[in-house]
Amino acid sequence: MLKVIAQDFIDPAHLEEVMPLYRELVEKTRAEPLCVSYELFVDQKAPGHFIFIEEWPDRAALDAHCDTEHFKTLVPRIDRYQTRPGIYLLMDAFG
Amino acid sequence: MLKVIAQDFIDPAHLEEVMPLYRELVEKTRAEPLCVSYELFVDQKAPGHFIFIEEWPDRAALDAHCDTEHFKTLVPRIDRYQTRPGIYLLMDAFG
Repeated sequence: MLKVIAQDFIDPAHLEEVMPLYRELVEKTRAEPLCVSYELFVDQKAPGHFIFIEEWPDRAALDAHCDTEHFKTLVPRIDRYQTRPGIYLLMDAFG
Repeated sequence: MLKVIAQDFIDPAHLEEVMPLYRELVEKTRAEPLCVSYELFVDQKAPGHFIFIEEWPDRAALDAHCDTEHFKTLVPRIDRYQTRPGIYLLMDAFG
């Protein structure tokens, strides 16, 4: 099981543009057959700081997600409003 | 509902010392009546980088957790092996 935290830093002046893109990304990703869980959160201290907490069976499933049509069309449209590059953390369960 | 990501940066030379401390912290925290979920992960690229993903009903429950006997005794013992201060992220669900 692979756990992922993906952090996006979006210009707060463009939240209206990114909200529907995130909404569509979440909906379509959750419909992927290999998606275990895919949740999106917002930093209480920074409205442009978005955090995905994801779970995938393995690395191949994550790679397949990044290769979907919805990922490849929506992510570049979101990234247009980034203030700095995203941070990606791939994790194993402790113990 | 409050989601929390807490990141610890531990000297990899001291993993043997911190592992049982983390184990005890996870076990006792999960037994707290207000704990919704409390999971611990390790960065695949950095064995000393530990990441908690937590869920609490609200901020008061998180504060109560930080005031428990197990938190106040175990966390300083873990922090002794830190290489830099932890990072805490309090988040709301998107949408």
